[in-house]
Amino acid sequence: MPQIPKTMRASVLKAQGDLALEDVPTPAPAPDQVVVKVGAVGICGSDVHYFKHGRIGDFVVDAPIILGHEAAGTIVEVGTGVDPGRIGQRVSIEPQRACRVCAQCKAGRYNLCPAMEFYATPPVDGAFSEYAVIQHDYAHPLPDAVSIEAGALCEPLSVGIWTALKAGIRPGSSVLIAGAGPIGVIMAQVARAYGASRVVSSDPIAQRRERATRLGATDAIDPAASDIAKLGLDVDVFIDAAGNEGAVRDGIMALGPNGRAVLVGMGADDMLLPVSRIQARELIVTGIFRYANTWPVAIDLVASGRVDMDALVTQTFGLSEVPAALTASGDPKNLKVVVYPDRA
Amino acid sequence: MPQIPKTMRASVLKAQGDLALEDVPTPAPAPDQVVVKVGAVGICGSDVHYFKHGRIGDFVVDAPIILGHEAAGTIVEVGTGVDPGRIGQRVSIEPQRACRVCAQCKAGRYNLCPAMEFYATPPVDGAFSEYAVIQHDYAHPLPDAVSIEAGALCEPLSVGIWTALKAGIRPGSSVLIAGAGPIGVIMAQVARAYGASRVVSSDPIAQRRERATRLGATDAIDPAASDIAKLGLDVDVFIDAAGNEGAVRDGIMALGPNGRAVLVGMGADDMLLPVSRIQARELIVTGIFRYANTWPVAIDLVASGRVDMDALVTQTFGLSEVPAALTASGDPKNLKVVVYPDRA
Amino acid sequence: MPQIPKTMRASVLKAQGDLALEDVPTPAPAPDQVVVKVGAVGICGSDVHYFKHGRIGDFVVDAPIILGHEAAGTIVEVGTGVDPGRIGQRVSIEPQRACRVCAQCKAGRYNLCPAMEFYATPPVDGAFSEYAVIQHDYAHPLPDAVSIEAGALCEPLSVGIWTALKAGIRPGSSVLIAGAGPIGVIMAQVARAYGASRVVSSDPIAQRRERATRLGATDAIDPAASDIAKLGLDVDVFIDAAGNEGAVRDGIMALGPNGRAVLVGMGADDMLLPVSRIQARELIVTGIFRYANTWPVAIDLVASGRVDMDALVTQTFGLSEVPAALTASGDPKNLKVVVYPDRA
Amino acid sequence: MPQIPKTMRASVLKAQGDLALEDVPTPAPAPDQVVVKVGAVGICGSDVHYFKHGRIGDFVVDAPIILGHEAAGTIVEVGTGVDPGRIGQRVSIEPQRACRVCAQCKAGRYNLCPAMEFYATPPVDGAFSEYAVIQHDYAHPLPDAVSIEAGALCEPLSVGIWTALKAGIRPGSSVLIAGAGPIGVIMAQVARAYGASRVVSSDPIAQRRERATRLGATDAIDPAASDIAKLGLDVDVFIDAAGNEGAVRDGIMALGPNGRAVLVGMGADDMLLPVSRIQARELIVTGIFRYANTWPVAIDLVASGRVDMDALVTQTFGLSEVPAALTASGDPKNLKVVVYPDRA
Repeated sequence: MPQIPKTMRASVLKAQGDLALEDVPTPAPAPDQVVVKVGAVGICGSDVHYFKHGRIGDFVVDAPIILGHEAAGTIVEVGTGVDPGRIGQRVSIEPQRACRVCAQCKAGRYNLCPAMEFYATPPVDGAFSEYAVIQHDYAHPLPDAVSIEAGALCEPLSVGIWTALKAGIRPGSSVLIAGAGPIGVIMAQVARAYGASRVVSSDPIAQRRERATRLGATDAIDPAASDIAKLGLDVDVFIDAAGNEGAVRDGIMALGPNGRAVLVGMGADDMLLPVSRIQARELIVTGIFRYANTWPVAIDLVASGRVDMDALVTQTFGLSEVPAALTASGDPKNLKVVVYPDRA
Repeated sequence: MPQIPKTMRASVLKAQGDLALEDVPTPAPAPDQVVVKVGAVGICGSDVHYFKHGRIGDFVVDAPIILGHEAAGTIVEVGTGVDPGRIGQRVSIEPQRACRVCAQCKAGRYNLCPAMEFYATPPVDGAFSEYAVIQHDYAHPLPDAVSIEAGALCEPLSVGIWTALKAGIRPGSSVLIAGAGPIGVIMAQVARAYGASRVVSSDPIAQRRERATRLGATDAIDPAASDIAKLGLDVDVFIDAAGNEGAVRDGIMALGPNGRAVLVGMGADDMLLPVSRIQARELIVTGIFRYANTWPVAIDLVASGRVDMDALVTQTFGLSEVPAALTASGDPKNLKVVVYPDRA
Repeated sequence: MPQIPKTMRASVLKAQGDLALEDVPTPAPAPDQVVVKVGAVGICGSDVHYFKHGRIGDFVVDAPIILGHEAAGTIVEVGTGVDPGRIGQRVSIEPQRACRVCAQCKAGRYNLCPAMEFYATPPVDGAFSEYAVIQHDYAHPLPDAVSIEAGALCEPLSVGIWTALKAGIRPGSSVLIAGAGPIGVIMAQVARAYGASRVVSSDPIAQRRERATRLGATDAIDPAASDIAKLGLDVDVFIDAAGNEGAVRDGIMALGPNGRAVLVGMGADDMLLPVSRIQARELIVTGIFRYANTWPVAIDLVASGRVDMDALVTQTFGLSEVPAALTASGDPKNLKVVVYPDRA
Repeated sequence: MPQIPKTMRASVLKAQGDLALEDVPTPAPAPDQVVVKVGAVGICGSDVHYFKHGRIGDFVVDAPIILGHEAAGTIVEVGTGVDPGRIGQRVSIEPQRACRVCAQCKAGRYNLCPAMEFYATPPVDGAFSEYAVIQHDYAHPLPDAVSIEAGALCEPLSVGIWTALKAGIRPGSSVLIAGAGPIGVIMAQVARAYGASRVVSSDPIAQRRERATRLGATDAIDPAASDIAKLGLDVDVFIDAAGNEGAVRDGIMALGPNGRAVLVGMGADDMLLPVSRIQARELIVTGIFRYANTWPVAIDLVASGRVDMDALVTQTFGLSEVPAALTASGDPKNLKVVVYPDRA
């Protein structure tokens, strides 16, 4: 076994807007953990948000923290309770640590565990670093057919899968997706993989609509040019990946009887929703909070070519460039930005 | 077979606020219909609303109409395609006429049939009249153990049953119900019949809270005295029977992880809902539109004594007194007001 | 509107083994029916069985009957209650006539309607004839992208779809299918369309295994060469399309915890099933009886190219050749045999 | 904290038929465990089976083992990771130790965990002893309203609850239960608590039928006197608590369309089941393996009086009398036999 150095390089968020490349102690694995040499980390909107604003809701960056929670790499060390045969294994990290004993965990909804520790959510470190630790069962083996970048993007892909499950997408389903950012585009791919017949992407920016149809949607509409609420789409499923009240309202109005809306995008805490329509059509409105038990499916969808995560990567950076990467991630021309912690 | 008279007495709503007792043609049964001599009709808030405002949403009273859709009686004549042996049978009327051929009907969701004809919804007549017609399969036989009043109240009871099904109430469930009017109280009884462990009724009026606990709830709280959103109730199910935005918001905030809100009360078309909480706890928010396939269960719950509909009747009237009955129904002291069409 | 002739040619089963091409009265449409000029009819094992044995279980051919229930064609006449604009429309026939009023119909399970009249099931005529009638809502419009043969094969495709729904197939699912006859091969295609990751076809005949993998399965195994029950497959879903007790037992033993077996193949009335395994792994065993509400999905799967029904057609015949077609259908070299009623 | 003695009395099964009261080391709690002073232990058929036959299937008594898995008591010591405030708490023991990391555990089906350690299943000790250890989250607090005997019987009650969930019992359900032994009677109570309208108990022994109707069933039939398969019961749910092939076959034949059979009784590994009926009516046949997440509901049902576990106890014994208790348990006059480990 190669010796793991006692310190490692990490991109540390010291305070709002203040990221520094530092040498920090390499984390030691607990008995049930593995140490992963991180190969690739995707950037998520929440990373950008913590960087810019120093907080998300009640989660405040009040001590230095390492961001990044879309990660894959190679196991280089294991805790005392883990099979050492796993050393050398390429893995995608499911960045959750649930308590395993509460009612939510035992009911199979561990994403709702009130004691959850989640990567890059204060005070838990993420993966913009050379090494990261995770419980062994949350380090999911990657077949050769899955690139390290796609392995990292199993995280946002899991958001799409969890949403598809909540939405009940299957052959015959018609799906409207508001927003053609990374989640919207991934969602379109996932909806197709779950068999959806029609996947309509809605986005006010022409470039993004074009991208959505190229990467998964069967159709795209401009919400500025047509009143989606009144088109009579009568879709089975509406997925919000925009976080915008107007888009959410329109999407709910576009649902046919017994339709389902799954709200994924983060926006205002409160939104004015069309309750009388929810009643008259017996619509179901729900939201998602991360995911549970999705990684095996995510890896399978990538490995079998049913979704294409590699095609989403539009720009890459080294570990010293995380500030630039976070900035680039906000550029609408980019879809997914990836950081390679083993690259300067 | 006794001869059915060619005309009958009916309480006809001629225009907003204008009800008149008139002689109108007795309806003749279509081949698949039965004629019911109406024995009892419960008054619903929608009857009161049509009477006072002449409309509900897009449904406008622009021609004379007979109100009343909570009805039971005795079959006195059958259409050519119906077994004449049913004459004399006591029945509860499910006041729906679905098309039976559309996608919703064929999927078992006939309440969402776009071609639905519903009693007392313009231009379809209801049952404030001596006789009424209904498709034979929507005339549900009543055992002797069910009074004619309880037979009529199988309609609001069906609202409760449909809600319980949408909410997934079962042993172990904790349920919060906003509003202790007729639907709130029925809902409490139904929740108990579905096995709920804890049924908390929330109402600002002490008398109504007392009534709710007497008639079904295990507990009652005053929303004016305590901030329901912050009590940490973490209930499994919230049912709104108030139609009030504040109550709906509080109820959703009172749900535990994976909880369900079913919105039954009619209020504003739009409500400001706590979307970030819906996401963070993966709550399901839905509404109901009438009911489907509930009557056999409703009758069984009454016949077996698991719910007590008779106890809800607080005042009764004859057919000539429908205006008084509608007014009385608005009195908070009343729970359910019943009209007997065979009584002057 | 072209005049429909008063008589038509039909292939009539007069008694066990006795098929004759005859002139019979062209059926007149009831008010809610359409008359379809039949373009193609697939042959099903049940047609062959009625021809050879004169009965299937309690259904006995005791009067002349027209077989054939996998049919598509063009609407040439409509009943008085049907939009005449549908004349000229290419349609796939869902060969069911449910009562629409019983508890099963109203709950959305019309395939379980006890009063069901089904094509080619005594005494109801099927479609080996120039014309056939069907209720208008069971005549499903075909887009141009769907050939008339594929339109006919929407019937067995519906068997596959209904099975996939009962089995809960979705991305990530591993599926074992016993039998690589027409239903087994269609099932493999459908399982893939529903997202299954792994679809293993089991058949003792090498040619059929080859065909299964060419037309949908990801993998094939020879049940004679390996003990399927002991391979540790631990699949999520087992589908029996063989009707053979040994295959059913093996398939159930191959299921992982919480797995589902759907029995589609018709075989012995009773089978010795591994009950202790069903308990220890909490397996679900069920069967299907035709299908409900599947046609729109079937047509969509064909039109979008997700399944390929045309590739299944291995031999075709004219209406006078139905006896030869039925015989050919039993030849294991054939997959699907199609009869063209408008061809001599 | 009272000192826990280093040794304790236990009834040890040394080999088939050979039970001895011995002094054995008191188990020490792992960090996540509690030590329970056992107050009452119900006897289950599996205890009797191990005693008589020395094995159940692949589980063989090849080393001394303590039987008994229906237990309740008082926490007297806690592991280092458990809140010491729990000492003194009355608890019902859920006698399972799942791995918490496998796919089944994380999906909420921990009862199907392949690494499960279960009380009184070789080589895991049960609770016929003064003390027993269990993971803290499997020691469920008992309210005062629940007796220690009823606390112990939350275990078989959980079997009933898990079965009711698999069966989907709710108001309106009609349920047939084969066998009026302890599980059959508990099942009848649970079915009622879940709202079943009609609960028919089937048992060939008149005394047991009488007991079933007294303790929960609405009705009872003698399978020797009437052919259950042909009565046309058309029940929604069949539950087998007899483990007898004939009873299982009859019960499946008694199901109406879309009905569900849940096989709870342990009998022959293989049974000849009516497959063609399963198909023609689209029945679901499944079995259960213990339970998951049922204790809170079990305790609630007892505490609220919806089920009566105390009424099931027909005979009690001290720890030295376990052989007599096991023998008594086989006597059909007994329903539930309880051992008090703190009684000589």
